[in-house]
Amino acid sequence: MWRKLFFICLSGLSLNPLLGQASKPTDADAFYIRRLFDEALTGNSSPDWLAYLCKRIGSRLSGSPQAAAAVEYTRQVLETLDLDSVWLQPVMVPHWVRGEKEVVHIVGSPSRGDISLRALSLGNSIGTGKGGLTAEVIEVKSLDEVDQLGPGQITGKIVFYNRPMDPRSLNTFQAYGSAADQRGAGAARAARQGAVAVLVRSMTNQIDGMPHTGGMSYQEGIPQIPALAVSTEDAEVLSGLLKQERVRIFLRNTSAMLPDKLSYNVIGEIRGSDFPEDIILVGGHLDSWDVGEGAHDDGAGCVQAMEVLHLFRKTGYRPRRTIRCVLFMNEENGLRGGREYAAQALRKKEKHYAAMESDRGGFTPRGFTCESSHPDFEDRLRRLSESFPLLEPYGLFLKPGGSGADIGPLKPQGAFLIGYEPDSQRYFDYHHTAADVFEAVNPRELKLGSAAMAGLIFLLDKFGR
Amino acid sequence: MWRKLFFICLSGLSLNPLLGQASKPTDADAFYIRRLFDEALTGNSSPDWLAYLCKRIGSRLSGSPQAAAAVEYTRQVLETLDLDSVWLQPVMVPHWVRGEKEVVHIVGSPSRGDISLRALSLGNSIGTGKGGLTAEVIEVKSLDEVDQLGPGQITGKIVFYNRPMDPRSLNTFQAYGSAADQRGAGAARAARQGAVAVLVRSMTNQIDGMPHTGGMSYQEGIPQIPALAVSTEDAEVLSGLLKQERVRIFLRNTSAMLPDKLSYNVIGEIRGSDFPEDIILVGGHLDSWDVGEGAHDDGAGCVQAMEVLHLFRKTGYRPRRTIRCVLFMNEENGLRGGREYAAQALRKKEKHYAAMESDRGGFTPRGFTCESSHPDFEDRLRRLSESFPLLEPYGLFLKPGGSGADIGPLKPQGAFLIGYEPDSQRYFDYHHTAADVFEAVNPRELKLGSAAMAGLIFLLDKFGR
Repeated sequence: MWRKLFFICLSGLSLNPLLGQASKPTDADAFYIRRLFDEALTGNSSPDWLAYLCKRIGSRLSGSPQAAAAVEYTRQVLETLDLDSVWLQPVMVPHWVRGEKEVVHIVGSPSRGDISLRALSLGNSIGTGKGGLTAEVIEVKSLDEVDQLGPGQITGKIVFYNRPMDPRSLNTFQAYGSAADQRGAGAARAARQGAVAVLVRSMTNQIDGMPHTGGMSYQEGIPQIPALAVSTEDAEVLSGLLKQERVRIFLRNTSAMLPDKLSYNVIGEIRGSDFPEDIILVGGHLDSWDVGEGAHDDGAGCVQAMEVLHLFRKTGYRPRRTIRCVLFMNEENGLRGGREYAAQALRKKEKHYAAMESDRGGFTPRGFTCESSHPDFEDRLRRLSESFPLLEPYGLFLKPGGSGADIGPLKPQGAFLIGYEPDSQRYFDYHHTAADVFEAVNPRELKLGSAAMAGLIFLLDKFGR
Repeated sequence: MWRKLFFICLSGLSLNPLLGQASKPTDADAFYIRRLFDEALTGNSSPDWLAYLCKRIGSRLSGSPQAAAAVEYTRQVLETLDLDSVWLQPVMVPHWVRGEKEVVHIVGSPSRGDISLRALSLGNSIGTGKGGLTAEVIEVKSLDEVDQLGPGQITGKIVFYNRPMDPRSLNTFQAYGSAADQRGAGAARAARQGAVAVLVRSMTNQIDGMPHTGGMSYQEGIPQIPALAVSTEDAEVLSGLLKQERVRIFLRNTSAMLPDKLSYNVIGEIRGSDFPEDIILVGGHLDSWDVGEGAHDDGAGCVQAMEVLHLFRKTGYRPRRTIRCVLFMNEENGLRGGREYAAQALRKKEKHYAAMESDRGGFTPRGFTCESSHPDFEDRLRRLSESFPLLEPYGLFLKPGGSGADIGPLKPQGAFLIGYEPDSQRYFDYHHTAADVFEAVNPRELKLGSAAMAGLIFLLDKFGR
């Protein structure tokens, strides 16, 4: 009770114009940011941690033994960083399993015989059962097209969603955002018109043989049907064949949703000296898909978030606000970790001064985008922009935009949300595939990201009011 | 004669304040630049050309059959682009050959026995002869250290240059620039003090097993000794061992310089409509080292330069000035192509309004740096900056800095020189190694570079006075 009152009192100090007044950036601040970059670039912690997560543990799907190992491993690492506290936040997560290797092939094409297609069940998809199923394929380019075709043309068929990502989008996440509805909602939409399964073109700008898995969800009251992604190369083959002849496909997958499992968000923090109740969160998500090693998505973000706290400790920075690293569980197929974290924050009346997520891969930093539901958003962005020139020599921008899936649930609480934005060109070459492995992450690009993130958090902490 | 007078007269028009007056950028200009990016991102010419150069032809060292094939191939491609003229410019080039696979090993270490080291002869190095040589190794960190040690400590030894690139440099080319003197001048400096050979730590920030070759040169009047690069992993092993014991190394290489060969710069141009005598050059270099496929260095720059002209043709742009694509021969071990081109330009009194080179890899574009010896440089940069906001939505900068090796010889002629600057973080993972292959180039990053280059050339052409 006294502790709480004490902290409420401390928190109130941020309204005191003398204590809370932002100082002006000086040469010493520029020098300190340079030091953060030097420390990041000469050390090797984040690549070493990522190598462990990827090579010793591997992929970390929610509910898997590897996800449990990752929780334990990152807790142990955080405990070595001389933080003020490290703890686990329990959260129940979905436990979806892929089952046996998927089998998808075109059946007895008059022109080409049987053709095997490289495919992966989409996350949360049900299976066909051991026997598999065979049906005629119909190609569509959108969810609406399925509705237009209606049950007459869709019933009993496998719907093949084949709208590619738009190569003209400079930021590949925009192209992804415009195409991913096929993957997320395609099954429910097709099932409503009587489809027996869906195949979805993989979400990538590359034409290659790697299927990309990813989340999908069913809708209440609509039958659940199997949903699989096919590689873009195979999507092209299938589409080409459909222009010439009727195509029947056999598919078999044994994926299934099991009962929820207990898992954890992993949290560590450095307590603020002046405004300990003001939390600046920095995080990524610890779970990954079950193919590849979850290197870019999102081992990179996790080790970068840990490295931010590590850099502050190594450089002796004493933050005014509490800097909290949160490694969220279950971003990929449920967002339970992010939701639970926000629910707990609300319950405990925690004040999130800001929250930053790194979940766009370990590529060269380009900048930051921010958003908030708080009425003072533009004012805060303007004030942050005043000290931002300190980060411009590092080739970084700051502008309004999205943030991150795991910190999104903090938005209704008015938090100032920041998305770390690395270069996006290569992300969808790896995303949700077997190619998302440690070797695909360039260590310098990863380290530069940690430094950029630490730099912006330093500005928020030092110059924020 | 009349033709020449006519063009002198036309050229003079650029001084006419009415015709030469720069217009202000409009929405139509912004739209046109967007179109250049759209065309680049939806087409696939530059990756297709690069695949041919890398996979069908391969590495293209000056004087090699592959270099000759690359001249013929790129000429044929340029001839398909509906240009106003395509021609070859003859140039005599050095013909250095690597010979048999290098053998380098530590001889009979008391603690570890024989240890093989992964090494590559440096370009232009002489060989040891068939028998090889064995000598004690001495490690140094700089050219000056060799002088300080003097003949007493250097005579009869193999000098091992082991100063790493500085990982703190944000732009890896700066770190490269600060370390590459060991490779370029280390042999001559060591030979002056009596060394019998040099080993040089590979120029990369990565610690791995790949040796990086690269150019070196001897000095008149100083004995020529063999010079080889060792991988950074092996440099670390060697340096570690030298801290514990005396180390002797056997090395054998059979590289040799043969008589000069006839080769060519490959040139194609679109003649300008208003100021045909004003040449805007865009280029890269066609030769590469003999390991890998010369994909980033500099197949990427060549196909980007060709793509710039292709984009202008595809979009129907009619340039006011002559846009000339030049694929230079022999950047890597002689710069003969660049020198010959500039000498011919001087002789023919050609006026290079501007020259841009892409020779920093096919990575995501970051911007452009420019330089000139002309007194109006700052004025021209300022004027170019006025229209440059049209390229800022593409995340690009424009600032003073270096340009490119092949266009450097145009500097005394007062040309406005531009270096295309892609992201530099990964370049020295591949540079001059067996890993510089087509697969290391991301097609989107490559295409974005062509579009950015075409965008800046458009601004120079349309708004330049």
